[in-house]
Amino acid sequence: MEKVLEVRIEELKRKLVLMGAHVEKALEVASQALLLKDQKTFQQVHEYEKKINADHIELDSTCMELLAKQGPVAKDLRFVISVIKINTDLERMGDQCVNIAYNGKEYLNFVAIEPNNEIPKMVNKVRAMVKDSLDAFVLEDVEKAKHVVSCDDEVDELKNESFKQLVQVMQKDPQKVQPALNLILIARNLERLGDHATNIAEGVIYAYTGKDIRHGFLKMNKLPKQV
Amino acid sequence: MEKVLEVRIEELKRKLVLMGAHVEKALEVASQALLLKDQKTFQQVHEYEKKINADHIELDSTCMELLAKQGPVAKDLRFVISVIKINTDLERMGDQCVNIAYNGKEYLNFVAIEPNNEIPKMVNKVRAMVKDSLDAFVLEDVEKAKHVVSCDDEVDELKNESFKQLVQVMQKDPQKVQPALNLILIARNLERLGDHATNIAEGVIYAYTGKDIRHGFLKMNKLPKQV
Repeated sequence: MEKVLEVRIEELKRKLVLMGAHVEKALEVASQALLLKDQKTFQQVHEYEKKINADHIELDSTCMELLAKQGPVAKDLRFVISVIKINTDLERMGDQCVNIAYNGKEYLNFVAIEPNNEIPKMVNKVRAMVKDSLDAFVLEDVEKAKHVVSCDDEVDELKNESFKQLVQVMQKDPQKVQPALNLILIARNLERLGDHATNIAEGVIYAYTGKDIRHGFLKMNKLPKQV
Repeated sequence: MEKVLEVRIEELKRKLVLMGAHVEKALEVASQALLLKDQKTFQQVHEYEKKINADHIELDSTCMELLAKQGPVAKDLRFVISVIKINTDLERMGDQCVNIAYNGKEYLNFVAIEPNNEIPKMVNKVRAMVKDSLDAFVLEDVEKAKHVVSCDDEVDELKNESFKQLVQVMQKDPQKVQPALNLILIARNLERLGDHATNIAEGVIYAYTGKDIRHGFLKMNKLPKQV
């Protein structure tokens, strides 16, 4: 039984890593399309989203089967529940990439304005957070997960600065209202991606330490080691 | 054992209903403050959010204990996992109410423009979706949950109409750019609240029927009745 559980947990990990790779690719193509102003590349985001949605259903189903058939406890139970939550975050990250594609396509349809400096900075920061949160999960690296959590404020600041500049652009030139609004919405999408990476990192910390650090609480997992 | 499980499941239900009531109150005060232009009432949203965050941690902890100690299977397992997911959605709904308060306070700071007709319509629609999704959970009412899922497109349409009108307001008068942007962001917050209510409704359908209807898939739960 113990051996079967181990194999199933490894299978879960493999599936989650594959889904994470699809999310990273979706974000990569969305960012490239935006920054290189390449309308066509946005289409690829939708292809990755389809894969992410299929991964989502498949992974949830595997988790439920594992819970029902293997009845994991302690660390293994925390791991499976964390995978269920990380799965939800990854799926919504796919949605945010689609939102970037949607807003990006509209942005390119109107009189061109350059993305302000904060947008490429946010792209780099958020892509690093997504990569690090997934690496932390695979490598069971709690320090890396803590680093991701610490990056969240920086992304929020970049978004606020971005908003401020883009409002000024809109106030100065009515023709730029629509594309500037699209960039504002993209900045918001990127911020949400950063939030999801932070949720994943918090999930990693919980899975491997039993500590729940959300909302600034620090609640030790109350489970006995073996029940 | 069976009896203890029943009691713990009822406890879970009670806790989730309480949390849901806090989310409904947060949305109620945020909506009132916005539509009555009452700066002070926004403050109450933060008080409800604190409660929601505490509920969130508490409910997750209860679910983990139940999974570890009672090892629920079949319908009971689906129920507990659905509660874990609904809990996540409720917590994020609290965040969206805080976002409405944040954008609403800023909106009231600037030259007053009236919220376009779509915003009060969205408020009513989304509040009904939130209420119905929670009622569906308590009453085990799958038809009501399906109704919530069917409302999602209507909210998206109201948001799109709202965006279109507010962009025109911004293009006509630079002084109205900031408050109109705040209303656009509030429309987006309301749309997200509708998405979360939809997620909850999908969770209710899964908990009580074993059917996973997300992403247009219809995947029957593969669990045997008793494992």
